[in-house]
Amino acid sequence: MQCTRTTTAHTIISKQSAASAFRALNGGVTPTSGSRPAFILVQRQYGAPRRQFSVTPQRHLKSSSNLLIKEFFPVKESEHIKKTPPAWHHPIYSEEQMNLVGPSHRATRNWSDWVALIMVRVLRGGLDLASGYKHDKAIALNKNDPAAATQKFAMNERKYLVRNIFLESVAGVPGMVAGMLRHLHSMRRMKRDNGWMETLLEESYNERMHLMTFLKMAEPGWFMRIMVLGAQGVFFNAFFVSYLISPRTCHRFVGYLEEEAVLTYTREIEDIDAGKLNSWEKMQAPDLAVQYWNMPEGHRSMRDLLLYIRADESKHREVNHTLANLDQENDPNPYVSSYKDPAHHPHPTKDLLHQRPQGWERDEVI
Amino acid sequence: MQCTRTTTAHTIISKQSAASAFRALNGGVTPTSGSRPAFILVQRQYGAPRRQFSVTPQRHLKSSSNLLIKEFFPVKESEHIKKTPPAWHHPIYSEEQMNLVGPSHRATRNWSDWVALIMVRVLRGGLDLASGYKHDKAIALNKNDPAAATQKFAMNERKYLVRNIFLESVAGVPGMVAGMLRHLHSMRRMKRDNGWMETLLEESYNERMHLMTFLKMAEPGWFMRIMVLGAQGVFFNAFFVSYLISPRTCHRFVGYLEEEAVLTYTREIEDIDAGKLNSWEKMQAPDLAVQYWNMPEGHRSMRDLLLYIRADESKHREVNHTLANLDQENDPNPYVSSYKDPAHHPHPTKDLLHQRPQGWERDEVI
Ligand SMILES: [Fe+2]
Ligand SMILES: [Fe+2]
Ligand SMILES: [Fe+2]
Ligand SMILES: [Fe+2]
Repeated sequence: MQCTRTTTAHTIISKQSAASAFRALNGGVTPTSGSRPAFILVQRQYGAPRRQFSVTPQRHLKSSSNLLIKEFFPVKESEHIKKTPPAWHHPIYSEEQMNLVGPSHRATRNWSDWVALIMVRVLRGGLDLASGYKHDKAIALNKNDPAAATQKFAMNERKYLVRNIFLESVAGVPGMVAGMLRHLHSMRRMKRDNGWMETLLEESYNERMHLMTFLKMAEPGWFMRIMVLGAQGVFFNAFFVSYLISPRTCHRFVGYLEEEAVLTYTREIEDIDAGKLNSWEKMQAPDLAVQYWNMPEGHRSMRDLLLYIRADESKHREVNHTLANLDQENDPNPYVSSYKDPAHHPHPTKDLLHQRPQGWERDEVI
Repeated sequence: MQCTRTTTAHTIISKQSAASAFRALNGGVTPTSGSRPAFILVQRQYGAPRRQFSVTPQRHLKSSSNLLIKEFFPVKESEHIKKTPPAWHHPIYSEEQMNLVGPSHRATRNWSDWVALIMVRVLRGGLDLASGYKHDKAIALNKNDPAAATQKFAMNERKYLVRNIFLESVAGVPGMVAGMLRHLHSMRRMKRDNGWMETLLEESYNERMHLMTFLKMAEPGWFMRIMVLGAQGVFFNAFFVSYLISPRTCHRFVGYLEEEAVLTYTREIEDIDAGKLNSWEKMQAPDLAVQYWNMPEGHRSMRDLLLYIRADESKHREVNHTLANLDQENDPNPYVSSYKDPAHHPHPTKDLLHQRPQGWERDEVI
């Protein structure tokens, strides 16, 4: 069985906090295996062949389109307040545009790029080791002994979710740190920010929405929570200091990190298409995701969701590679500027209109 | 003479950075007094009785409506880029609404409030001492010896600008720190932020726009710059730690701080009306301010600008007093939520529609 836990279905009432929801849910968990509770899968798989849930009949789910999603974050409603919409509206992506997104690599051109790339490689290696994600080995082993490969190295829904949640919980750090440092820098040096802050904060917000979305599908156990706490503490401080030393290298670093993110989400999509992730095939995107990304009716599957998230990562890849090409002190942010001759020169946009996986060169945009 | 420096007029070409503009300008300064160069007034007072400028004829200003404003921050324009608009659009304030804004005080109700108030009083006392702003003493002395009062304690344009620039350069810290900490908290604790972050970041952005606006009128010298650097370093760290300990007290603290800000800007407006700030009477708001606040034609004077800024401060006062009344972990942000019965219950808004100088109580909004 792929899932280490089965769980009694709960519908969290709206006023309950996420914290008490978590406690309530954990109280309802019946452990069925002795493995460490690093993760608890809570999406429901009605009719899915490999999972079983005992559902209390009265407590059925609210929306039929959302049968597979657990209300880990209740929608906040109170006596007066109806809803609280997201801070930044997401640009509209078309399916055609999202299908154009794919892995890409920008070759290093100088020492700064090289340092950034090495850092990403080291971090990725460490994470692969910790999370048991060994794609190359899995492929190699698969040739010799397909059964063993599946047992030992193949990713499944649980492993992918662990990986996604962990990565997204740190992915929101760089944009926030960079945005904050540029804000403080602008005030203490009494200089314009030139519009960078906005895009950086929006990026960090978008990453947090990725995290919130994955948390709608699974609930981390205590081991995972401690890992996230530690990772944020270390990464926040490391990125803070690094950004003070070389913002350019930091943006390149994020660019390379996002290259990896696009790669990972591409593999998840391919694994769905290859029939390796049964429980994701039937799964619908949570309401939160449908609203945030404006997912059109009939295109709200888990696969569609991953297309949106991958496209977001490709934008971060492009934005950060572009910012790393600019004069950090004096150049305006090309993503929020208006252009003199937009009809003749394609220019950076917030949506997927002109995709440049390796970023825009400075002379193209400034 | 009120201004410690006169300066040769310069028009900074668009590609020059603020830093090089500053150097270029300082190069053109002819010191006329021996006092410390904490501040250099650079707005132009064509025809104003107490100032003299030697203007190089070819280098006249771009816009006639802006005769009194120095281009300390050149508008960023490049080969491709036309302009870079602000990150957050400012809500529209009507003149009538802005005239309703005035000083107000929320009485302390508990120990947390009391700590916040004491901190504000201490900081204000320290700043008054350092900046030579002694309103009460000035009034007292004025009764006995009006001439001496003017000499010793009266505020003038330069003193007000020093004070405003210094205060605005730290005013952008709390919102950014609070927004960032809530973002990180949400990710590491895997809980919703409930929409607080947006308002806090927008507040810090708005404060930075205040700073940028005042910097269009005056250019800080090295003494001021060092003070700002030190103040930001100390205040950032103090607020960071305080917000981790008690976010509620921190919001109350900002609420009280903004009570003082409204007071200061009210006095500046009164001093203009009383004819005490001659050079501000004829001054026009800089283009940056006209665009940011959508200032209507015919209402773009320095006095109008101060009305807008004071109204902003009154919103921060209201927002932070309100946030301090809420459950920091679980309540949604009332300023970005939609309401069930808006027709019958007035509710918090981003503009000046329903003003509550002392903040909204929790049961009114949640
Ligand atoms: Fe992400
Ligand atoms: Fe990302
Ligand atoms: Fe301000
Ligand atoms: Fe303020």
